[in-house]
Amino acid sequence: MDTFGRNYRVSVFGESHGPAIGVLLDGVPAGIGLSVHDFMADIDRRRSGAKGTTPRKESDIPHFVSGVYEDHTTGAPLAVIFRNENTRSQDYSLFRSVPRPGHADFVAGVRWHGFSDPRGGGHFSGRLTLPLVAAGVVAKKILAASDRSGHPVSIAAGLEEIGGVPVSEPGHEALWERILDQAMQEGDSIGGIVGCTVTGLAPGLGEPFFDSVESLLSHIVFAIPGVRGIEFGDGFRAARMKGSEHNDVFVSSRGECATNGAGGINGGMTNGNPLVFRVAFKPTSSIRKTQRTFDFSQGEMTDLEVPGRHDACFALRTPVIVEAAAAIVLADLVLTAAR
Amino acid sequence: MDTFGRNYRVSVFGESHGPAIGVLLDGVPAGIGLSVHDFMADIDRRRSGAKGTTPRKESDIPHFVSGVYEDHTTGAPLAVIFRNENTRSQDYSLFRSVPRPGHADFVAGVRWHGFSDPRGGGHFSGRLTLPLVAAGVVAKKILAASDRSGHPVSIAAGLEEIGGVPVSEPGHEALWERILDQAMQEGDSIGGIVGCTVTGLAPGLGEPFFDSVESLLSHIVFAIPGVRGIEFGDGFRAARMKGSEHNDVFVSSRGECATNGAGGINGGMTNGNPLVFRVAFKPTSSIRKTQRTFDFSQGEMTDLEVPGRHDACFALRTPVIVEAAAAIVLADLVLTAAR
Amino acid sequence: MDTFGRNYRVSVFGESHGPAIGVLLDGVPAGIGLSVHDFMADIDRRRSGAKGTTPRKESDIPHFVSGVYEDHTTGAPLAVIFRNENTRSQDYSLFRSVPRPGHADFVAGVRWHGFSDPRGGGHFSGRLTLPLVAAGVVAKKILAASDRSGHPVSIAAGLEEIGGVPVSEPGHEALWERILDQAMQEGDSIGGIVGCTVTGLAPGLGEPFFDSVESLLSHIVFAIPGVRGIEFGDGFRAARMKGSEHNDVFVSSRGECATNGAGGINGGMTNGNPLVFRVAFKPTSSIRKTQRTFDFSQGEMTDLEVPGRHDACFALRTPVIVEAAAAIVLADLVLTAAR
Amino acid sequence: MDTFGRNYRVSVFGESHGPAIGVLLDGVPAGIGLSVHDFMADIDRRRSGAKGTTPRKESDIPHFVSGVYEDHTTGAPLAVIFRNENTRSQDYSLFRSVPRPGHADFVAGVRWHGFSDPRGGGHFSGRLTLPLVAAGVVAKKILAASDRSGHPVSIAAGLEEIGGVPVSEPGHEALWERILDQAMQEGDSIGGIVGCTVTGLAPGLGEPFFDSVESLLSHIVFAIPGVRGIEFGDGFRAARMKGSEHNDVFVSSRGECATNGAGGINGGMTNGNPLVFRVAFKPTSSIRKTQRTFDFSQGEMTDLEVPGRHDACFALRTPVIVEAAAAIVLADLVLTAAR
Repeated sequence: MDTFGRNYRVSVFGESHGPAIGVLLDGVPAGIGLSVHDFMADIDRRRSGAKGTTPRKESDIPHFVSGVYEDHTTGAPLAVIFRNENTRSQDYSLFRSVPRPGHADFVAGVRWHGFSDPRGGGHFSGRLTLPLVAAGVVAKKILAASDRSGHPVSIAAGLEEIGGVPVSEPGHEALWERILDQAMQEGDSIGGIVGCTVTGLAPGLGEPFFDSVESLLSHIVFAIPGVRGIEFGDGFRAARMKGSEHNDVFVSSRGECATNGAGGINGGMTNGNPLVFRVAFKPTSSIRKTQRTFDFSQGEMTDLEVPGRHDACFALRTPVIVEAAAAIVLADLVLTAAR
Repeated sequence: MDTFGRNYRVSVFGESHGPAIGVLLDGVPAGIGLSVHDFMADIDRRRSGAKGTTPRKESDIPHFVSGVYEDHTTGAPLAVIFRNENTRSQDYSLFRSVPRPGHADFVAGVRWHGFSDPRGGGHFSGRLTLPLVAAGVVAKKILAASDRSGHPVSIAAGLEEIGGVPVSEPGHEALWERILDQAMQEGDSIGGIVGCTVTGLAPGLGEPFFDSVESLLSHIVFAIPGVRGIEFGDGFRAARMKGSEHNDVFVSSRGECATNGAGGINGGMTNGNPLVFRVAFKPTSSIRKTQRTFDFSQGEMTDLEVPGRHDACFALRTPVIVEAAAAIVLADLVLTAAR
Repeated sequence: MDTFGRNYRVSVFGESHGPAIGVLLDGVPAGIGLSVHDFMADIDRRRSGAKGTTPRKESDIPHFVSGVYEDHTTGAPLAVIFRNENTRSQDYSLFRSVPRPGHADFVAGVRWHGFSDPRGGGHFSGRLTLPLVAAGVVAKKILAASDRSGHPVSIAAGLEEIGGVPVSEPGHEALWERILDQAMQEGDSIGGIVGCTVTGLAPGLGEPFFDSVESLLSHIVFAIPGVRGIEFGDGFRAARMKGSEHNDVFVSSRGECATNGAGGINGGMTNGNPLVFRVAFKPTSSIRKTQRTFDFSQGEMTDLEVPGRHDACFALRTPVIVEAAAAIVLADLVLTAAR
Repeated sequence: MDTFGRNYRVSVFGESHGPAIGVLLDGVPAGIGLSVHDFMADIDRRRSGAKGTTPRKESDIPHFVSGVYEDHTTGAPLAVIFRNENTRSQDYSLFRSVPRPGHADFVAGVRWHGFSDPRGGGHFSGRLTLPLVAAGVVAKKILAASDRSGHPVSIAAGLEEIGGVPVSEPGHEALWERILDQAMQEGDSIGGIVGCTVTGLAPGLGEPFFDSVESLLSHIVFAIPGVRGIEFGDGFRAARMKGSEHNDVFVSSRGECATNGAGGINGGMTNGNPLVFRVAFKPTSSIRKTQRTFDFSQGEMTDLEVPGRHDACFALRTPVIVEAAAAIVLADLVLTAAR
């Protein structure tokens, strides 16, 4: 099912080259101010344009189909659609015979018996992250509206690595730009790592076991195309630490800890310390560089160069998507916890 | 909610020192042979006893409350309980004042307003992974019963690292045993990494976006206490690779790939190649070694040595739990895909 | 939540006078032939036009936003919208002060803190049954595509009573037309009873207890605005029968029964006999006739005549909606049972 | 699935002659006082003993498996079991060949391929309403604990008709006792109608469309074995009324109405007036009186007298079950609305 959430439910729909893509949001509280303008900052962050991103341009204007009246949410299901405009009438039938490595062409054909919409990746297109960003915008609004503490929830994601180069160290910008340039010249692609930190969360959000905060966050983060891994707090490094190093000792009556190896989560629930996680994005699958792969119609190996407009590093566009994913989970948990 | 799954639903319940813990399984097909004996191999793998694991011993015999008749599943909900036997009447009230670092003591107190059962960690105890293993046993049976191909699904998890030492290389056993001994002597603990490989899966299981195979697997894996990260295929390394390195080119008409950087998943769905993922476990939180932490009743820092019987490395006991988690997801997907 | 179903999931959205209303269908199998034309017969049955129905006219053309490609379902979520065209710019603010008796004006105001869209009843409009009919069309297609027996499922609903007059008896047509005329002249409205019979169902669909066929059917039937009761087989009359009268004895090895007092359901599951149920619809709430009711802004009683275009007997338009409701449940059960 | 609810989730399990039956409750808030004693009044109301009910006696003592500590709910999943004691080792294999009319014997055999537990009706036994009553007890506690108004929710169900005789009118007790005696003498059975009224509900509980109060209530009420119909407010009579008769006009600023034909619900949500519904129960299916039905093993008609201990009128035992069903829905809605 393309639906996520319990009390704030998000459903995405659409194909890359169909008339529109969209998102249906259920459980949005009534009375939250919401206009098209509220979406544009996050949509712009996701948009292509920077070096290393696809030149496909869309206006990406959200159209409210339902759930908004006089610039406020009504409480009824909120549907938003984005028209697909800049679609190219390229021939995608090649990928029925020669499925692109790293793409869903092959499995979609198996699963949907050849009936999936192949144009631009159809429902599997990265363009479907746009409705996710829209759901994140509304989620951030829900979080802001739910705040009673005066310390609103703040979600900030950013790139930590591009092509293996940490971005935060001085002088590294030139380095990863060079790596990006080189990949583009070679018709190749590179990956990246996104870190996300959430502050202002009350302790006690989430559930033990199946609805742990990590479970819910990883569930939605792996819904973003191209994610290969997720870790919380010390993450994989924790497996190489001693308990005395990894444990976060408490230092105040508010539950603040001296360290944050748990990434702000104990027993599946937020502990009031910053929620911290990192997400690994693979390099873009679509590359111009020649790949030797199988031609299913001919029954033999063949050469494939994936034509079209690609991101050399789509990870560059993902921080706002990761933020949206986190916001969706947290809005659901905050609405649930309000009980 | 402590429930997971769509067509095969697993709910766990119980506290470490209550009368029993258990699992309720809904959606189990009728007519699958099932007896107590079927559970014992996996239960024994999870059981304590080896060096580095707790000396707490339980008989861990499953008792069928419902859903089994004349050694076959009936189709009705299947409830299994495990009596708690070897419980010690230790005083856990200390941890109300001085919550154990790395444990849920603090957040459970906040969330459940001081009413949570503190004995042995209550509902947050690692003992709750026993019902998960039981759910995995039934899931493996469902997978075997669903096989029409003659190539049944095989799930195998094992330790890849203990305390930072890869276990598979020659001579490393002595090394990690030494690390383990040292941690035990110091009253400290170590973590580990578990790898899991699933073969025999048909292509096309899972869904795009929110019910991707990675989403479902990570969801349940993070329900296992002490998990800090999960990665699929090339995992975090993929973020440092080029597309031409990471992409899995096809080499046969059955969809076999030359490499498996995607870990057997494209577009959220299995592609017929082995499903491969790795899970990072933190070091055990309960350590005898003195920790300087906060005393909430006194409002000042204090010294804490966590008494009791602990695993120095609970990761040693987790491969069968990871297998169970994978089996639960895959049984659900296989039942769903049978449509 | 405005979502229903487990393996075939239906979500409706939209407001009567917003840009569009729609439905999102998840879990539709791939490869089912589907075009706009397939919807028109059922949409026409629901449409106004006959005596006793509102003169509001809409073209009610379904627009596929997603999930359909080259006239076949793709397997991806299927979104259909219907533009709202014939909306009148009437002033609905009166109903904030003087909520219409029998309508949701009052409760929507309470629940959604005055932010609900008041125009034409907003999300509570009977117009929202149009997406339900669309979901029913697709459900009927799923049922047809799932048939392996050569005896496809057939769903037929029809009016049994209008204004207390049984419609099936000779000469009664003139009688209920007269009752209808009279109600229209008086600015009043009348109700009706719809019966529904489903044949061709395999035995064993549904679940004991919470997902019994009766539970699922009644759940969705009461989602249709204006339903006051539902009964299966002998229904309320069963409460006045003896066991020896009400019990359905078996008469063949296929499970056929001599009578059908259970309405084709035993233990929550279909028994292979025709599924039979009846639904009671109230008279239309919006009436021109003067009602003495409360003015919340003035704090005193007032006279209200509800202006606008109303059905004198909206029950006339409901048989196809009841069929859709049944089809949705049965498509879900057939997909689930295919496991 | 044998699970119901969103934020208060109820799962039942067990078979009539297995070791125990039980209920798993998820989402119970922490800190609610709860002991075995709290269950006994409602359990006694459901228990057999009165004229017309089965002489099978069980102690029906609830055993807490989890979720209760020091006589308070902990917030963790709450499991309660009831041991099956007074089971008779009667031979149920007859009913494989000659399925009892009105029972699930036939459909369970088809659905579960002959593997269902046949003893005492197995999972389909009316005994499974005992866990439902237990879930209702906890639900009533949740409702009481949630009250902020000083006007707590009150749920009262009672018999309105037995064997077609209204019970509330003077002199009718003797009449329905005579009808009951006669049915018992003839080895036959009779049905009844239960009415339920809920007061003290805040307006605005429930959702438009699929999670309307009527949808949720009817869903769970039809999970009770033997229900044939449900109606709200004026119910089926509404179909024979005019709008001007059926509409409930408002008479106060609190939303009170002059009449209550809608049964306290508008647009799927409570309107603050008493919630009123009626449930029709069929006569008991198990009758001693000879029935002419099909012998599936012989392929011919045969005579069947169902042996054993039966309720001549199980409807007598159902008011507390109907109350429990209502309490479960309302507790879920109150927890959801608290957001």
